[in-house]
Amino acid sequence: MRQEVGRRTWAIPEGYIPAESTSADPALASHETACILNASDRDANVSITLFFEDRDPVGPYRIAVPAKRTRHVRFNDLKDPEPIPRGTAYSSIIQSDVPVVVQHSRLDSRKAELALLSTLAFPAE
Amino acid sequence: MRQEVGRRTWAIPEGYIPAESTSADPALASHETACILNASDRDANVSITLFFEDRDPVGPYRIAVPAKRTRHVRFNDLKDPEPIPRGTAYSSIIQSDVPVVVQHSRLDSRKAELALLSTLAFPAE
Amino acid sequence: MRQEVGRRTWAIPEGYIPAESTSADPALASHETACILNASDRDANVSITLFFEDRDPVGPYRIAVPAKRTRHVRFNDLKDPEPIPRGTAYSSIIQSDVPVVVQHSRLDSRKAELALLSTLAFPAE
Amino acid sequence: MRQEVGRRTWAIPEGYIPAESTSADPALASHETACILNASDRDANVSITLFFEDRDPVGPYRIAVPAKRTRHVRFNDLKDPEPIPRGTAYSSIIQSDVPVVVQHSRLDSRKAELALLSTLAFPAE
Repeated sequence: MRQEVGRRTWAIPEGYIPAESTSADPALASHETACILNASDRDANVSITLFFEDRDPVGPYRIAVPAKRTRHVRFNDLKDPEPIPRGTAYSSIIQSDVPVVVQHSRLDSRKAELALLSTLAFPAE
Repeated sequence: MRQEVGRRTWAIPEGYIPAESTSADPALASHETACILNASDRDANVSITLFFEDRDPVGPYRIAVPAKRTRHVRFNDLKDPEPIPRGTAYSSIIQSDVPVVVQHSRLDSRKAELALLSTLAFPAE
Repeated sequence: MRQEVGRRTWAIPEGYIPAESTSADPALASHETACILNASDRDANVSITLFFEDRDPVGPYRIAVPAKRTRHVRFNDLKDPEPIPRGTAYSSIIQSDVPVVVQHSRLDSRKAELALLSTLAFPAE
Repeated sequence: MRQEVGRRTWAIPEGYIPAESTSADPALASHETACILNASDRDANVSITLFFEDRDPVGPYRIAVPAKRTRHVRFNDLKDPEPIPRGTAYSSIIQSDVPVVVQHSRLDSRKAELALLSTLAFPAE
């Protein structure tokens, strides 16, 4: 297999973590995820920068994705430099020092039943 | 970070604002959104043109997206030059004078539970 | 605006029209749609070819999309050369004589509540 | 029609087969699918490799997609070299010896109502 699949910069314009969930089960709590695949044989150092509607960007949030591994990063769990406010519109730019592939998903459980969305991120370079 | 991420022209073939909602909560009303990320250090002047099945295009709708900001534009809220009819198929072309990234989402609450869809817009140039 | 946005050949690997719906309202019946935007100033002649798991391709289905118009084509409504079987996996190739942009969506109402999916089609050339 | 549409390598960062379903109907059981369209006039030999968060990649899973056919592969049904664990994050790389087009979908029926997501895979080369 070709060792390196993907790009080094990705953008996700949609971002919104619902403030409520109807489920106490963590797997079914409302959440937003960036799935990052590093199919290369080198570890990836990934930085996430968040953009908001009414204030300066926040970041970087730093994530390690080892060689030949995937990492499903929950935005809900990002804490450093600061947690992401709930019920707030944001966007993200994801940068890696080796090529990766990024997909964005959301599970919304504000109602008793689930709703899902997903799309590839935009491969910027 | 590379200052400019994205393209200047984007297309969203899907467009449909359901005529009904089961929720009085604005966050849960049926709506359609274009999320526009301007990661550059220049303010973006964005124009949206709408295409319909049986009449001439309408627009431009003008949106400002400041430098290093995101804007989650609800099509429901567009008023000038005219509001978008509900329950009607449309498409949109989004043009910006600086590169941006655009993602399209819909929340459908015609039923008591939510349904979501989302995809990147098509980067035309 | 640049007059021609898009590509002449698009592919949609997913295709499946659920055999059941819980709603008698046509807007809420299970359906699958190809949204085709023709932002150019020339009328588009579009051909759809369907691919199946266990028989030869079927088509072309012919669709006209006038200049500066969109067309949200329901696969459910395609009749000529033959209707699409329900509950059957298929894929589609969409070809146009002028550049267009294509997005694929499905509304699934096999259960009382709606589920939605959508993605851009693959721009082949 | 141009005989070959697509690419030879695709990546799907999202992967997660829910451990539960509320439906005994196989069509409505929680499942994850890769829809693979081979519009060419040559049979395709497809290999799927899975990537995990905490162990080495698994594969290849081998799939045949005949010329001018589609194949909607349920990840749930992959058995050789080993079944995919439920409730576990993974990613996949899909490689073919002729160009194909790949779309990823999930039906989640952990709740009584359905949720759907879908996106094109990332065309790597």
